[in-house]
Amino acid sequence: MPWLVARQICYRGATMQRRVIRATEHGWEGIEATGYSPEIPGTGVARHTIVGDRKSGPAEPGPQVELRYFELQPGAVSRLEKHEHEHCVIVRRGVGYAVIGETVTELAADDVVYVGPMELHQFVNRGDEPFGFYCFVESYRDFSQEPTPEDLARLEASPAGAVAKPFAVPPARKR
Amino acid sequence: MPWLVARQICYRGATMQRRVIRATEHGWEGIEATGYSPEIPGTGVARHTIVGDRKSGPAEPGPQVELRYFELQPGAVSRLEKHEHEHCVIVRRGVGYAVIGETVTELAADDVVYVGPMELHQFVNRGDEPFGFYCFVESYRDFSQEPTPEDLARLEASPAGAVAKPFAVPPARKR
Repeated sequence: MPWLVARQICYRGATMQRRVIRATEHGWEGIEATGYSPEIPGTGVARHTIVGDRKSGPAEPGPQVELRYFELQPGAVSRLEKHEHEHCVIVRRGVGYAVIGETVTELAADDVVYVGPMELHQFVNRGDEPFGFYCFVESYRDFSQEPTPEDLARLEASPAGAVAKPFAVPPARKR
Repeated sequence: MPWLVARQICYRGATMQRRVIRATEHGWEGIEATGYSPEIPGTGVARHTIVGDRKSGPAEPGPQVELRYFELQPGAVSRLEKHEHEHCVIVRRGVGYAVIGETVTELAADDVVYVGPMELHQFVNRGDEPFGFYCFVESYRDFSQEPTPEDLARLEASPAGAVAKPFAVPPARKR
């Protein structure tokens, strides 16, 4: 997989040299925004991977943590998913909803969200401006799991069912 | 240590129930700002521990990550220290300096800083307004180490020596 090799070389070079990543008008110096996932365009979600990257093993060099910034255009949502690793989210701009399990909570700037292991979750832009949030994860982590039919039935029957968009972002391909 | 026990009970109660921690005008709902460390008042540094808390072992329940927000008054600095665990910092407001090793870099809102293992570091308010930043660490982590005389000599001889304040915050007591 030459793409993966090139990516790791770039990443390692970057982390060896950069300790301060400066904000610019539309992102961060040297960080190229991608789609939600490289293989899924057109979701209305931009992803900036600011620090670290996914590791294939705990001993792989590089930061233990990965800091991403996601920005959702009006109407856009993050993938509805669950996984063993945690999320810690800080809202940077705009307004949204956090769907966590069967609950839905309004979010605005500087609100913080903790998503625990295996909690089904989705972030939703509820405004007319971009909704942006930082998201911390461990670099060495499990892959996302799709909701089961039982998960979806519970979600649909809950207050969060009115807000969630289960099929807006396709499942991730494991890399 | 009754203080420690009470703290852990409060913390666990909080993390079991709260997934969204709302920002308020001066902090976050239900989060009491403390001094830099409980035992060191008067540093001009406020600390808000928003998610998680220090763990005494990797299997202890609760979030794997800890999110803190530090706000430094004009003239104030964080402790000059080093440790095996990483820092990932996002500037929220104001302007400052990051001292990392022998380098010093200006910081402003949304700049991101990664501090690697055993890098001597300090954050400095360089403005007339509070300088505030989020800081992520692992919950289970080593304690801070003071700079050695050799560290201080190298710092003093470097560009960062003009900015760092090595003795502004006393060493942490291990808890």
